[in-house]
Amino acid sequence: MIKTEDKLMMMPGPVEVPHRVLMAMAKPMINHRGKEFSAIYDDCQRISAALFKTAPENISVISGSGTAGMEAAVGCLNSKDDKILAIENGKFGQRFKKLAGKYGTVVPLEFEWGQSVDLGAVEEKLAAGDIKTITMVHNESSTAIRNPAPEIGALAKKYGAYFILDVVSSLGGDDIRVDEWNVDIAVTGSQKCIAAPPGISMVAANERALAEMENVTTRPYYLDLVAYHKSASKELKETPYTPAVSLFFAMQEALKMIEEEGLDKRIERHYLMTKAVRDAVTAIGIDMFPQLNEVSSYSNTVSAMKAPAGISGEDIKKALNKRGVIITGGQDDLKGKIFRIGSMGATTPTNIMTTLSELEQVLYDLGVAEETGAVMGIAGETMAKLYE
Amino acid sequence: MIKTEDKLMMMPGPVEVPHRVLMAMAKPMINHRGKEFSAIYDDCQRISAALFKTAPENISVISGSGTAGMEAAVGCLNSKDDKILAIENGKFGQRFKKLAGKYGTVVPLEFEWGQSVDLGAVEEKLAAGDIKTITMVHNESSTAIRNPAPEIGALAKKYGAYFILDVVSSLGGDDIRVDEWNVDIAVTGSQKCIAAPPGISMVAANERALAEMENVTTRPYYLDLVAYHKSASKELKETPYTPAVSLFFAMQEALKMIEEEGLDKRIERHYLMTKAVRDAVTAIGIDMFPQLNEVSSYSNTVSAMKAPAGISGEDIKKALNKRGVIITGGQDDLKGKIFRIGSMGATTPTNIMTTLSELEQVLYDLGVAEETGAVMGIAGETMAKLYE
Repeated sequence: MIKTEDKLMMMPGPVEVPHRVLMAMAKPMINHRGKEFSAIYDDCQRISAALFKTAPENISVISGSGTAGMEAAVGCLNSKDDKILAIENGKFGQRFKKLAGKYGTVVPLEFEWGQSVDLGAVEEKLAAGDIKTITMVHNESSTAIRNPAPEIGALAKKYGAYFILDVVSSLGGDDIRVDEWNVDIAVTGSQKCIAAPPGISMVAANERALAEMENVTTRPYYLDLVAYHKSASKELKETPYTPAVSLFFAMQEALKMIEEEGLDKRIERHYLMTKAVRDAVTAIGIDMFPQLNEVSSYSNTVSAMKAPAGISGEDIKKALNKRGVIITGGQDDLKGKIFRIGSMGATTPTNIMTTLSELEQVLYDLGVAEETGAVMGIAGETMAKLYE
Repeated sequence: MIKTEDKLMMMPGPVEVPHRVLMAMAKPMINHRGKEFSAIYDDCQRISAALFKTAPENISVISGSGTAGMEAAVGCLNSKDDKILAIENGKFGQRFKKLAGKYGTVVPLEFEWGQSVDLGAVEEKLAAGDIKTITMVHNESSTAIRNPAPEIGALAKKYGAYFILDVVSSLGGDDIRVDEWNVDIAVTGSQKCIAAPPGISMVAANERALAEMENVTTRPYYLDLVAYHKSASKELKETPYTPAVSLFFAMQEALKMIEEEGLDKRIERHYLMTKAVRDAVTAIGIDMFPQLNEVSSYSNTVSAMKAPAGISGEDIKKALNKRGVIITGGQDDLKGKIFRIGSMGATTPTNIMTTLSELEQVLYDLGVAEETGAVMGIAGETMAKLYE
């Protein structure tokens, strides 16, 4: 709920952090090489494994942002001459491509930002060459598209490639099945659907990927997943370098809250909140930005809308900001062209209602909406199921 | 002061974090691309610059441990064929050497752990070859030695080498003069003398170092100091990747507390606390571990003692642990041979008194000390000046 002096964080991360999680960070410091920390690490592995749908021992918890986790994944698995097929249809796909170029040889596969990934084009690249690794973003939050992870995983398997999937902005808010989808390494961040503060990245790497990493001599140091796995395999689980202890306190609490809510219920809440945004805005004449194909879908955790003709997305963002509701615009070339609303983590249907009603008022003030009061009933009906 | 269920953290980091700093982390999340975050970043640069004694704009604040900062420094400045003279006389010097080997060509200069750095040996290496960079740890906390930073800086200047200095466990608790000492890059962590939680590293890099980094194409990605400087030069200061916002709240508060105390007073407090430990333990027959020469001195922030004959340092550590006082033992080959007491950050003279009195009791129980009650007067006298 929006508070007097605080803002309502409706960006696609960082998100509002529940009070319980904030208070967990205020706990006094503990020794990071001891039983208490080991138990926290174990909780993080165990609970997040249920979100990734993989084994707890596959998971490394890194003190760093999602980008740090992405670098760990790409950099530990690939050497200079290894070909990396970097699928890009948004900002974070582009970041993966840049990272891939730091450690391996990039085979780019670029789709216009906002377009869907074409499976035929992916298979063509795989058939043509000797691709060691595929990188893709599951939930491309810059354009609010859910990319076809199971389908790409099947292609990776067919061609014997490793598959690295960025689930930074979907894990904990969408259905992820790392093992079933043939994902070799999956990477997430703390500050999206998990609703913890930013600064922790979790990486799930399977045995196949971990075995291959042993052959890669150019692995980064701070972000060396082999070192993380070694330290987490000790009798007392620990990290190779000093961990951000307070953020581990937060992560443990946030993951416990996911357990309490139940993952399926949480995913449904995310689904109905994004659907409510889509239903409401399209009803008042705003177009959704993503161009979907048969294997893509709208993101389960963030919505991207086209700015109405003659209006900049930045102006919509700023007007909402003034009202205490923090949404976000487009990145790079999309700046001004789109605006985005997150529905991640601890966000409630009430937060969505607040945001939509303020948005409608802003659009009315900008001369786009003809009247106010339309969105609430529509969004309310979509989300009614959450109160059954 | 030790609390009922909490432990007294007397390790050389992570240290006790003051309540004010802990509570700062419980603040609600903010947008990390906005004015409020920019002001926090600015505070961190401004106040820490006074500790490094360099310009605020030289400073990057990284979400990661001190090791991340060390990797940023070594990796952004050096390419594969660059020769790095890695001075090692303890665990963290060894870590720097390993890191150097990831990015450049190591010229090792190893002294036995606990021995001092010999300037003649350093100059010999510099005179022999084409050394691009020297790495050294200022305060080698694994052995409690303060290495000769000004002298090595002078040699670096004489031979035109870059000088990277690890001040992870001394900044904020000892006199550091980055510009005056010809240090090109200095690296610190949050969880030592600054008394913030672990998870933030600050790196001070001068113009000369930053200009050279532009020529290094193999810089790491998440830890790219050029990217950090670019983002911090914007009108609204930001970080290239999502920062650990809550840890920035903590860092800002911890740095403000250093301003309030006054740096000179804080350094004197650290000096008198470590001196009190030395005075007290040597009075009851315990030997200090470091072997000093004319350019080295005892650490200003941590003390390392030899385990008495027939007793393992681990047993002393465990016995104190049971009493709620967390000290630490030796690392790697030094395990069992030494025990270490930190005097860092917000540690008070009273904490030192508590620790020494419990230590004396433990040594008495182990049959080492002949009586109890000796240490308090000695330590109290050394620290009396702090209450004048």
